[in-house]
Amino acid sequence: MKDFYNNKKVLITGGLGFIGSTLAIKLAKMGAKVTIIDSMIPEYGGNLFNIKPVENIVVVNISDVRDRFSTNYLVQNHDLLFNLAGTLSHVDSMTDPFTDLEINCTSQLSLLEACRQYNPEIKIVYAGTRNQYGKAQYLPVDEKHPLMPTDVNGINCNAGEYYHILYNQVYGIKACSLRMTNTFGPRHQMKHPRQGVLNWFIRQLMEGETVRLFGTGEQIRDINYVDDVVEALVLLGSNDKVWGEVFNIGGIPVSLKQFVEAAIKIRGKGEYQIVPFPDERAKIEIGDYVADYQKLTKFTGWEPKVDLEEGLKETFKYYEENQQHYW
Amino acid sequence: MKDFYNNKKVLITGGLGFIGSTLAIKLAKMGAKVTIIDSMIPEYGGNLFNIKPVENIVVVNISDVRDRFSTNYLVQNHDLLFNLAGTLSHVDSMTDPFTDLEINCTSQLSLLEACRQYNPEIKIVYAGTRNQYGKAQYLPVDEKHPLMPTDVNGINCNAGEYYHILYNQVYGIKACSLRMTNTFGPRHQMKHPRQGVLNWFIRQLMEGETVRLFGTGEQIRDINYVDDVVEALVLLGSNDKVWGEVFNIGGIPVSLKQFVEAAIKIRGKGEYQIVPFPDERAKIEIGDYVADYQKLTKFTGWEPKVDLEEGLKETFKYYEENQQHYW
Repeated sequence: MKDFYNNKKVLITGGLGFIGSTLAIKLAKMGAKVTIIDSMIPEYGGNLFNIKPVENIVVVNISDVRDRFSTNYLVQNHDLLFNLAGTLSHVDSMTDPFTDLEINCTSQLSLLEACRQYNPEIKIVYAGTRNQYGKAQYLPVDEKHPLMPTDVNGINCNAGEYYHILYNQVYGIKACSLRMTNTFGPRHQMKHPRQGVLNWFIRQLMEGETVRLFGTGEQIRDINYVDDVVEALVLLGSNDKVWGEVFNIGGIPVSLKQFVEAAIKIRGKGEYQIVPFPDERAKIEIGDYVADYQKLTKFTGWEPKVDLEEGLKETFKYYEENQQHYW
Repeated sequence: MKDFYNNKKVLITGGLGFIGSTLAIKLAKMGAKVTIIDSMIPEYGGNLFNIKPVENIVVVNISDVRDRFSTNYLVQNHDLLFNLAGTLSHVDSMTDPFTDLEINCTSQLSLLEACRQYNPEIKIVYAGTRNQYGKAQYLPVDEKHPLMPTDVNGINCNAGEYYHILYNQVYGIKACSLRMTNTFGPRHQMKHPRQGVLNWFIRQLMEGETVRLFGTGEQIRDINYVDDVVEALVLLGSNDKVWGEVFNIGGIPVSLKQFVEAAIKIRGKGEYQIVPFPDERAKIEIGDYVADYQKLTKFTGWEPKVDLEEGLKETFKYYEENQQHYW
């Protein structure tokens, strides 16, 4: 794999964010020539400190994926695009559906048009989301599960993903999608809970706050540590059998309560309380989710490697050392 | 049903088009107060002559569904919205994907936001399309069939439809979708074949041209005469059990060749030839399609009433009498 990525020209949208920056570090260390696109919108996950370990060997280009002019230029002369820019917030997508549409739907189409016109040889790994499925009709959820999102974000991400598969089928632009589930670990923004609740629990515990779990706290989520997700992205980008395919990723099915209890155990202190769902969340809540990721394993050999305890330890350690860059 | 619609305030987007105008005439004759929104974009289906029979009892408002300001106002003070504005062209959606996105995706979201903010009591019947399914994985296609479109139009229509179902579920705005298949009959535009091929065959036969069928001509389509489609829309709008649901409509499964042969028989003359698929159509061709419309029948009692021969006779008659308004 190191051989594959050595000297490869790789573009990462959302590359200053949580998963994008972790991926950028890994690829840069394997010898890839990495260019990062990020809009640095304050509410989102971009943070220059995230790429500190490779800041001298990656190129950072501040631009928004809604800017067609810059993407038309930037996609050129790259071998691979890891297309991770996107909004993730379920609640924000309901209060501001048009921004969600512009970023997750319109911009995906314009990125693909840019590739079709200016670099049809590029290979694209798109970051999908389990939010595309909506409420699970059965568990574990495989890739054939109906796509019935419970919020605007999921609808737009379905369109964004399907454009990729369509451009693969019609124009031969090599593209695949990895439908991600809840991911936690270092480099996630820590300013608000709207882009992923797991790291928010970690911040609350670090601050000595009581963690608030909605409903019963028994909702099952299929949790991944960020390094495992990045490993899957890297495997997909270097595998020529994956184009035109969509893949689930998943790993550790635990209830949110169990996640918080594990975090409290490792932290040595902390408490949580169960509170009713706020109205705007109750309406879009998806219930339990467990992914069937056999297809990903079959195509790439991927398996999750980092267990919950180890992931939590690494995460606490990172934020304790670097708190001033995230709080 | 006449009682239900008498004095109802009904808004129809795309109301000067093929299906919209046929619906407007039916509703106006039942005593509904009909307002039509149409952009009159020359390439699309809008034609003022279409509503000639009711021109003095309907209100025509020329505006585009992309114009949020006008829709914010126009949705007010209406009981029902038949949301038929949309582009249908598979090929156009590939050559100009952004226009397709703006009309079928963005504008649907802004229409729903307009309803949520200014008229949450309105009921909406949305015009979906069999194009949302892509290639049939089994026949007949029921509403649970996977949605895997083969063109940008289908992807955007999926998003447009899902916004409706989501706004029903989250905000209680009563909305349902009717996934239409190939429809033919009077009032369809006759200037080009990109919004439905059946009426184009009819024009070709009327002009003494050889009809060109792509591939083998054996592709099965599930064909409806326009009056039957309008009957289904009217039934849905007056039924309080349909909100939040999606329905297939279908009727006469025939090959395109059989359709043309039936038309030639009724016309008494004409010929066709089989030609290879043009490249841009081959890539997005969906193969055979037959709808399972049992759900629609179960909820509303709808059945197709007009057989192919009768529909063709009416269609030829209409265009013979009114050719100057369509050619």
